Amino acid sequence: MTDQPLSLAATLARDLLRCPSVTPAEGGALALLDERLTAAGFSVERMVFSDHGTPDVENLFATIGTKGPNLAFAGHTDVVPAGDAGAWRHGPFDGSIEDGILHGRGAVDMKGGIAAFAAAAIAYVADKGDALDGRISFLITGDEEGPAINGTVKLLEWAAERSHTFDACIVGEPTNPAQLGDAIKVGRRGSLSGIVTVTGVQGHVAYPHLAKNPVSDMLALLARLDALVLDAGNERFQPSNLEITTVDVGNTAFNVIPRKAVANFNIRFNDTWSVDSLKAHLRDALAGVEGLACDWQLDFTSDSSDSFLTHDAELIDALADAVEAETGRRPELSTGGGTSDARFIKNYCPVVEFGLVGQTMHQVDERVPLAELDGLAAIYLRFLESYFAG
Amino acid sequence: MTDQPLSLAATLARDLLRCPSVTPAEGGALALLDERLTAAGFSVERMVFSDHGTPDVENLFATIGTKGPNLAFAGHTDVVPAGDAGAWRHGPFDGSIEDGILHGRGAVDMKGGIAAFAAAAIAYVADKGDALDGRISFLITGDEEGPAINGTVKLLEWAAERSHTFDACIVGEPTNPAQLGDAIKVGRRGSLSGIVTVTGVQGHVAYPHLAKNPVSDMLALLARLDALVLDAGNERFQPSNLEITTVDVGNTAFNVIPRKAVANFNIRFNDTWSVDSLKAHLRDALAGVEGLACDWQLDFTSDSSDSFLTHDAELIDALADAVEAETGRRPELSTGGGTSDARFIKNYCPVVEFGLVGQTMHQVDERVPLAELDGLAAIYLRFLESYFAG
Ligand SMILES: [Zn+2]
Ligand SMILES: [Zn+2]
Repeated sequence: MTDQPLSLAATLARDLLRCPSVTPAEGGALALLDERLTAAGFSVERMVFSDHGTPDVENLFATIGTKGPNLAFAGHTDVVPAGDAGAWRHGPFDGSIEDGILHGRGAVDMKGGIAAFAAAAIAYVADKGDALDGRISFLITGDEEGPAINGTVKLLEWAAERSHTFDACIVGEPTNPAQLGDAIKVGRRGSLSGIVTVTGVQGHVAYPHLAKNPVSDMLALLARLDALVLDAGNERFQPSNLEITTVDVGNTAFNVIPRKAVANFNIRFNDTWSVDSLKAHLRDALAGVEGLACDWQLDFTSDSSDSFLTHDAELIDALADAVEAETGRRPELSTGGGTSDARFIKNYCPVVEFGLVGQTMHQVDERVPLAELDGLAAIYLRFLESYFAG
Repeated sequence: MTDQPLSLAATLARDLLRCPSVTPAEGGALALLDERLTAAGFSVERMVFSDHGTPDVENLFATIGTKGPNLAFAGHTDVVPAGDAGAWRHGPFDGSIEDGILHGRGAVDMKGGIAAFAAAAIAYVADKGDALDGRISFLITGDEEGPAINGTVKLLEWAAERSHTFDACIVGEPTNPAQLGDAIKVGRRGSLSGIVTVTGVQGHVAYPHLAKNPVSDMLALLARLDALVLDAGNERFQPSNLEITTVDVGNTAFNVIPRKAVANFNIRFNDTWSVDSLKAHLRDALAGVEGLACDWQLDFTSDSSDSFLTHDAELIDALADAVEAETGRRPELSTGGGTSDARFIKNYCPVVEFGLVGQTMHQVDERVPLAELDGLAAIYLRFLESYFAG
């Protein structure tokens, strides 16, 4: 093998992977970005956000340019844990490169995406020099894989308080199912999590008339939830879907009728629904279950989010054109998959998402081909040129 | 208040309550019985039984007499834990007597029953002297409240190996719901415990097509079990009844579709069923549930027991007559409630159960009026006289 010099995107990605920034640890990742972006002329600020009951988290804001539209790039340097480090082919925080493939936790989710955009932005800014006719901003958090409380939400508020406004935002999460160029995300489904609690009367199985078994009522309530057909989807979104994620009683005694049963569920829903309309629908559905003997209640967690769809055709086309020009393939405009910090950003400006191929994210041996990193950097660069030109 | 001299039953009960014989500890209770029965002329043996994975447990066998029918009395000196000892009005192992009421863990379940029978047997034997025309045997275990593996089952085998045969047995468990004389138990329902395990494919809630949620299938299987009407009961027994005692998934992540769900259930069943016919019925019922996507299995625990009904009218009548003569009330012949060691004894000889009032058993402030203890001793004595006379 011959050693080829690494591209800026590859170098930056490798160096970021060597920072053990398992959420919520900064791990040196933001310090590294700070240094590289400052060297490229960006004005960089780092801030720690705090909240009750959550760990303090470091975040970074960087910006360059004084006039023209402000294009934001949003991402996170925190990563999920490596899991069984011994099961990895290369150390999860070694930044090893073998046969043109960079290995490590965060390679695709999403230090690789950050490195590709930073490389594109640095190249674009260097190329334009004093003729730079736009603004580029980085919104980088260390709290995306964690509770997401001391991250993007507060970073956006922090920027707004300082009169930073954004005309568009690209989120660099991995959006491609199989191959670079597969899909741009132009919206996301909403998410609503609920908790069903049924409280009966404990007793001995030999004396059921002295007890009220909460399991029977829980079965009836969950059967209703599980049978709900919320909608059929539409041309923009998949059908909404409910999954019961757990049911727990925790009674180890075969001769005891338990007192309480608790179940959790989560719904990913499309723009047929809002959080509020969905909550009302679920309350109605469960209130319609007859023949219950126990007390029960339906609660919702506080981290629900509405669906959104980005309507800025110019932004979407510019990104899709750049993808097609570099990959030869027109990306699908998708609203599938999970949530991302785009659900917060959409309240400030139009947002689209495009990044690497997601296949190995959150898995052992997370990795990215260097060619894919460079391909993504080329797409971002082409997009920057077109965005600021048009 | 004037101090009245305590009866033999009351003295013995108080002394037994002072032995902290929380299962499987002997706590001095069997040593005490050994001493008192030996002094009364009984031949007493104590043996420790052991088994893999269970604590060693002490047991006691005592017998007197050389001819005539052999009447056994079965009971246990082990007790359930006191729970929150600070919540008790009197120390749970103090054997305190206040206002004619004896307090302590085991007062009714069932050191009081043992004391009453021992007092009756000692009085009967003393009265007959050399003219004793029958045999009385004690089968006392320390493993009734525990796994019931190193107790009555092995004690019966031990006795059989030594050619001890029994013509009838009285179990001294508390059988009266509200008042001494309410009920004799002449049979017990069977018990069968099962475990349903459903195994799906774990995944992210945003990608349900890549996962198989075991909760949905579990709901369908449990709904079938919960809806089963096994029988309507009969003149001898209550209807059979199934209770789902727990369902557990243990998934704390709202965004994860879990891999596995496990549920336990228990059936108390009457003589319409045997353990085997019931297992087959349950297998058929679950096999008939359609539309399942996951793997599932139905297992049964090894501690099942068939129902039984004692048909020895002479034995039952003698006991019921004694109860009526002392209390003025004809006891109901009951087969309700939980299981007892009678389920093992019935394989050796006809067995009936009669003891104290069960209301405070297993509770804080378990207690028995001294008058009830003496009343039970009088019933047992009257029964001994009638049994050996007839
Ligand atoms: Zn991510
Ligand atoms: Zn008992």
